[in-house]
Amino acid sequence: MSPRTTSFAPRSVADVCEWDFEADVVVVGYGSAGASAAIGAAEAGARVLLFEGASGSGGTSAMAGGDIYLGGGGGTSVQRKNGFEDTTEDFFRYMMMAGGPDADEERVRLYADGALDHFAWLQSVGVPYSDTYLPGKPVMPGTGDCLILSGSEEAWPFSERAKPCPRGHLPKAIGEAGGRVLVDALASHVRALGVEEHFDARATALVVDGARIVGVVVRADGEEKCARAHGGVILCTGGFVLNEEMLREYAPQISRLTDDSLSAGYDDGSGIQLGQSVGGAAIHMDEMFVTLPFYPPQSHVKGILVNERGQRFINEDAYPGRIASYCLRQVGDRFFLLVDNEIFEQPSELSRIEIAAVGETWDEIERALGFVEGTLTSTVEIHNRHAARGEDPLFHKHEKWLKPLDRAPLAALSCHLRETFYPYFTLGGLRARPTGEVQRSDGSVIEGLYAAGRTACGLPRWGEGYSSGMSLGDCTFFGRQAGRAAGERARTA
Amino acid sequence: MSPRTTSFAPRSVADVCEWDFEADVVVVGYGSAGASAAIGAAEAGARVLLFEGASGSGGTSAMAGGDIYLGGGGGTSVQRKNGFEDTTEDFFRYMMMAGGPDADEERVRLYADGALDHFAWLQSVGVPYSDTYLPGKPVMPGTGDCLILSGSEEAWPFSERAKPCPRGHLPKAIGEAGGRVLVDALASHVRALGVEEHFDARATALVVDGARIVGVVVRADGEEKCARAHGGVILCTGGFVLNEEMLREYAPQISRLTDDSLSAGYDDGSGIQLGQSVGGAAIHMDEMFVTLPFYPPQSHVKGILVNERGQRFINEDAYPGRIASYCLRQVGDRFFLLVDNEIFEQPSELSRIEIAAVGETWDEIERALGFVEGTLTSTVEIHNRHAARGEDPLFHKHEKWLKPLDRAPLAALSCHLRETFYPYFTLGGLRARPTGEVQRSDGSVIEGLYAAGRTACGLPRWGEGYSSGMSLGDCTFFGRQAGRAAGERARTA
Repeated sequence: MSPRTTSFAPRSVADVCEWDFEADVVVVGYGSAGASAAIGAAEAGARVLLFEGASGSGGTSAMAGGDIYLGGGGGTSVQRKNGFEDTTEDFFRYMMMAGGPDADEERVRLYADGALDHFAWLQSVGVPYSDTYLPGKPVMPGTGDCLILSGSEEAWPFSERAKPCPRGHLPKAIGEAGGRVLVDALASHVRALGVEEHFDARATALVVDGARIVGVVVRADGEEKCARAHGGVILCTGGFVLNEEMLREYAPQISRLTDDSLSAGYDDGSGIQLGQSVGGAAIHMDEMFVTLPFYPPQSHVKGILVNERGQRFINEDAYPGRIASYCLRQVGDRFFLLVDNEIFEQPSELSRIEIAAVGETWDEIERALGFVEGTLTSTVEIHNRHAARGEDPLFHKHEKWLKPLDRAPLAALSCHLRETFYPYFTLGGLRARPTGEVQRSDGSVIEGLYAAGRTACGLPRWGEGYSSGMSLGDCTFFGRQAGRAAGERARTA
Repeated sequence: MSPRTTSFAPRSVADVCEWDFEADVVVVGYGSAGASAAIGAAEAGARVLLFEGASGSGGTSAMAGGDIYLGGGGGTSVQRKNGFEDTTEDFFRYMMMAGGPDADEERVRLYADGALDHFAWLQSVGVPYSDTYLPGKPVMPGTGDCLILSGSEEAWPFSERAKPCPRGHLPKAIGEAGGRVLVDALASHVRALGVEEHFDARATALVVDGARIVGVVVRADGEEKCARAHGGVILCTGGFVLNEEMLREYAPQISRLTDDSLSAGYDDGSGIQLGQSVGGAAIHMDEMFVTLPFYPPQSHVKGILVNERGQRFINEDAYPGRIASYCLRQVGDRFFLLVDNEIFEQPSELSRIEIAAVGETWDEIERALGFVEGTLTSTVEIHNRHAARGEDPLFHKHEKWLKPLDRAPLAALSCHLRETFYPYFTLGGLRARPTGEVQRSDGSVIEGLYAAGRTACGLPRWGEGYSSGMSLGDCTFFGRQAGRAAGERARTA
């Protein structure tokens, strides 16, 4: 796994003595992006080869909740059935805000316009969905329900610019197996379409003919094999959250966190490195989806979060991924959630948050935790004074989560970057057009090379804006787009 | 200048019909890094060609103060003359802290060990230095003095881990022309060594022979010309602060700032893009040197900075570049410097800071500026209470800059990201060994390709740690290293 031991330097076609495989489209990586790419290419009439480093399909997608972020067009069938109307413009605006200062407008537009069709497509390939809505702020519910509020839709500033609507669509699954259900359905369809699958086969180099990509070198059964791709090679090997060297060079803030990442074990950045080896630019490599699920219990959203200086810094009703990103902006690795007796419940195991101090007054807790006198107490006083009026002029938390924290006993729960936060996955990746075509830093396209999923920098590209379901939405939608584009190219090239 | 109009796709050597130029080493870019690279290569006995896009030498280096960050080994002659002893270990530790979570230890070690020799070398090539020390916290002094405190040496947390010492060495120059003096001396030496210079010649592609770089294509006199490099091509074209597309994709936080960058007009990222085009990895591309020179007058360092919520967030005696980086972590684009009558002086033009409110009490100012009641006043109360005892338990400002802000009339001076801050230059660039050898993301070296200055990611790679003189120090020291390495390679290749 160590990147030092491999070199991804491209192979010249002149140095390939023999093609062991030949296909229209070669897909590398078999998570939800790779599966969708293979399907897209096969749908376009291409003969498809799929290489996966693991011994089975699924990748990191299979470890996720399976949530896909969908809406617009008046609403999906599930949104409508549950009384939610969702316009494409609200959906678009939310996705643009979520993409941050470099949101990819072309990509967001395609996705917003195509989301209803995409949902129908997922159902058509066999992903099962119920039609029920689970209210509140569920985190990885695993109840078999479909629709959830999965981001910062109801929170400032998103709520001011896009009408809130739940858009997370979970496959019908009990427990945390939603992602597995999603990928299994895709994989069945991949097989039904006659895609040739090879497991335990890792890509080690791209084969170049001048500036064009014409194939890929894989290592399988202890041997090096060369696969020719007439239409293109599609890189779908996930992100780089397991590659320590890349993390240090691209996202060094990660060193403040635990290594409790969401990965099936292959997010070593190899796809990104293969793309870079032939001139592909990797962008927004400092962005990650880090999260701090400080609830359930949901009542704790009514508490307030402070940094080590006793300062509040965000509306606590925002999505936990956004909150975690703001935590990383603070100096100091420890945070406290302040609650009172009215909202306190035993924290869930998931939240990994612990009681640090209990007292009759905030003054007492301020002293007990060694805060500088007047810091914690002034923060709570300002919060309580406004919360009593249903206001939060400083951080704009929604009225329904506001209450004065004044019913003793009072408590401070503590969480710590290194112990409590989840650095789930990386959001940076190869710069690519919505077709998946990998681009150089100057915007030009590398002929024959495509990327999708977290190997590309897609819809989600800003930790502060991430909402659950955006990554799998991007993987499946733009995976399929890349497959189609490479399949088309095979026909015309 | 638009990156859309050019493609930096590499040229195969098979497609080069004729070499218009031939040399051992070809240097692209004629700022301080390029000049030092050319000298280094010539010193190693190489025949050197130097291409520069502008009509003269200097690049962005010529616009800087000319400061070079040097020390260790007991101190430079100027440090010692002025009573400063500086150990190599203190110098090393400071540089490591300044490099942030991914400081390049090998590079820092070489630099710390070689700094005294480097100073002697700069003098030997004709850079003039006086031997005087200018005390205090000077910002671009232009007094002709040499030694200044040019970073966060005396500020927390740096002061805790490395004994403070002034290390900024300015060339003898009056006004802001120190960088010009530096580059002119280097350029004279370049010419004395017989380096062939070509101006108005911009590199547009690297020439590849398999995985090796064997030359460069330049555009000069409206024609495309090919230059063969037996030892290597050294990219020294500066950073990308003028390339809007790259800024959006790599450092989107820049959109919060003005476009008042420090650039001679050619920091368009072309060198980085050329390196990427052949598989070079660009790292720490989100890091910038942004600064907020809220003083002179130096007495204002005794004021406190608050964000739009009235919260303090840093020790105000840190280097202004570090302070500006912390400002970017805050929500809201406006900041206030709180001062009292004892320390207030008319702000300098450079600082671009303006009086926003004056009052007899902080309460009055809090209301006048529309702060939420209790926010600004509690921040000042906590600060004043401790400052009276010479303490700053929250932000650890040094005692000598602490005083209660209580002598009416009181004032809040306002500064704004878009109007007041200087986004000077980018710190991200090609990953390179200390020899300048450009690396792929997997750590392997691209044969025949070198980078230095802000085209590479060098010593300065973390906005929060930047100190004045680090970039020119890196440009000249590692420019020379790259020149030598490429020169050596020409002899042995």
